[in-house]
Amino acid sequence: MTQSAHTLVLLRHGESEWNALNLFTGWVDVPLSEKGRAEAARGGVLLRESGVLPDVMHTSLLRRAITTGHLALDAADRLWIDVKRSWRLNERHYGALQGKDKKQTLAEFGEEQFMLWRRSYDTPPPEIELGSEFSQDADPRYASLGADAPRTECLADVVARMVPYFESEVVPDLQAGKVVLLAAHGNSLRALVKHLDGVSDEDIAGLNIPTGIPLVYELDAALRPVTPGGRYLDPEAAATAAAAVAAQGR
Amino acid sequence: MTQSAHTLVLLRHGESEWNALNLFTGWVDVPLSEKGRAEAARGGVLLRESGVLPDVMHTSLLRRAITTGHLALDAADRLWIDVKRSWRLNERHYGALQGKDKKQTLAEFGEEQFMLWRRSYDTPPPEIELGSEFSQDADPRYASLGADAPRTECLADVVARMVPYFESEVVPDLQAGKVVLLAAHGNSLRALVKHLDGVSDEDIAGLNIPTGIPLVYELDAALRPVTPGGRYLDPEAAATAAAAVAAQGR
Repeated sequence: MTQSAHTLVLLRHGESEWNALNLFTGWVDVPLSEKGRAEAARGGVLLRESGVLPDVMHTSLLRRAITTGHLALDAADRLWIDVKRSWRLNERHYGALQGKDKKQTLAEFGEEQFMLWRRSYDTPPPEIELGSEFSQDADPRYASLGADAPRTECLADVVARMVPYFESEVVPDLQAGKVVLLAAHGNSLRALVKHLDGVSDEDIAGLNIPTGIPLVYELDAALRPVTPGGRYLDPEAAATAAAAVAAQGR
Repeated sequence: MTQSAHTLVLLRHGESEWNALNLFTGWVDVPLSEKGRAEAARGGVLLRESGVLPDVMHTSLLRRAITTGHLALDAADRLWIDVKRSWRLNERHYGALQGKDKKQTLAEFGEEQFMLWRRSYDTPPPEIELGSEFSQDADPRYASLGADAPRTECLADVVARMVPYFESEVVPDLQAGKVVLLAAHGNSLRALVKHLDGVSDEDIAGLNIPTGIPLVYELDAALRPVTPGGRYLDPEAAATAAAAVAAQGR
């Protein structure tokens, strides 16, 4: 067995109030639901019980990921570790679909278009209108991006902004011997898994990451996964949850 | 009136479970009480309503300050700002008094000794015994301090470790034009106020900072307070609360 040199832990935020309502969320900054808060705390208990103790946390700029990380670290008794945040860990920007009901969108545009927007690698939804209700163009947290702030994204776009962050900000922490926790989102974590495991543009469509269950990647010195796909700290719950995510919107 | 160049916001954590039990806490990492969580959120509402919006937060390594900062920023819609943590913002280490009942300590040692430990500038309580129940010598968050980790502190010790952090870590953020939030503790904030306002070793004994009410210092280019003592965002509540803190242990 290859020697494990680095430990990276991926944690997808628990259920948000809009997950519960089945709305496309993207960059809209909705809070966790009560269920989501409980999922986050349970993720932290799994970390503590398995002895996977993060030394540094990276989060997106969205409260559902930030609060998930806070609640998980609190439960793991690691609230005091260093924290770094970046928009590059944000959920995929869902463009004009942000704020729309998933079932209504499916009914309005049909199965083919719906699945293309949700799961194709390189087809983004239409751009969101500047100044509209669910646009972030006036949000101070993205002011420094200026005109580069995305108005829609496909998964390829997320890979293109996530992987450079991983290389420049996360890898140095790993190489310093730190256990790194990434508290982020379904699509930013899929983008990273695609990169780490070398998943093809086609196969990534079928990969779902469940909420609230830490996914641990042991990486060798060349940052290749010792076990492809990593390991969930609760594999049974992860398998059940991934199946449920795949069925979303049906 | 002197031109204000920098904005610094001090926030003392809300009531902890041990504040409610009237125990000496120091470096023991107890959680906020429900009342303390509500105080923290209200502090965030005061920030939002007064338009004092932090760009970066500094916290201690203790969960009651970290969670206060989290809840306040959540309420202020600023959860996404950068965060830095340091043991130098911790509460005063209460030495062998940690975990002891304040009333019992008063009865056991008498008024004079009790007030000396609580309010004298340079008389620390006896050192805590290594390996004892409320000692932090096995706590990984202080491992890097080694033998330099304090086993008791007087307020002068807190000034000696807090002010260098302020100079090296907080001042650069202020000079970069950022509104800085410090989420910390009664004594680490008193240490800073002593430094900022030039309070004498004697007079600092009478200064109490209430919990959960943001204390805003506008500083001039030389980092001198434009208004000595700063201003509380809820001055009436602050005056009432400060009187209650002064009466603690009676």
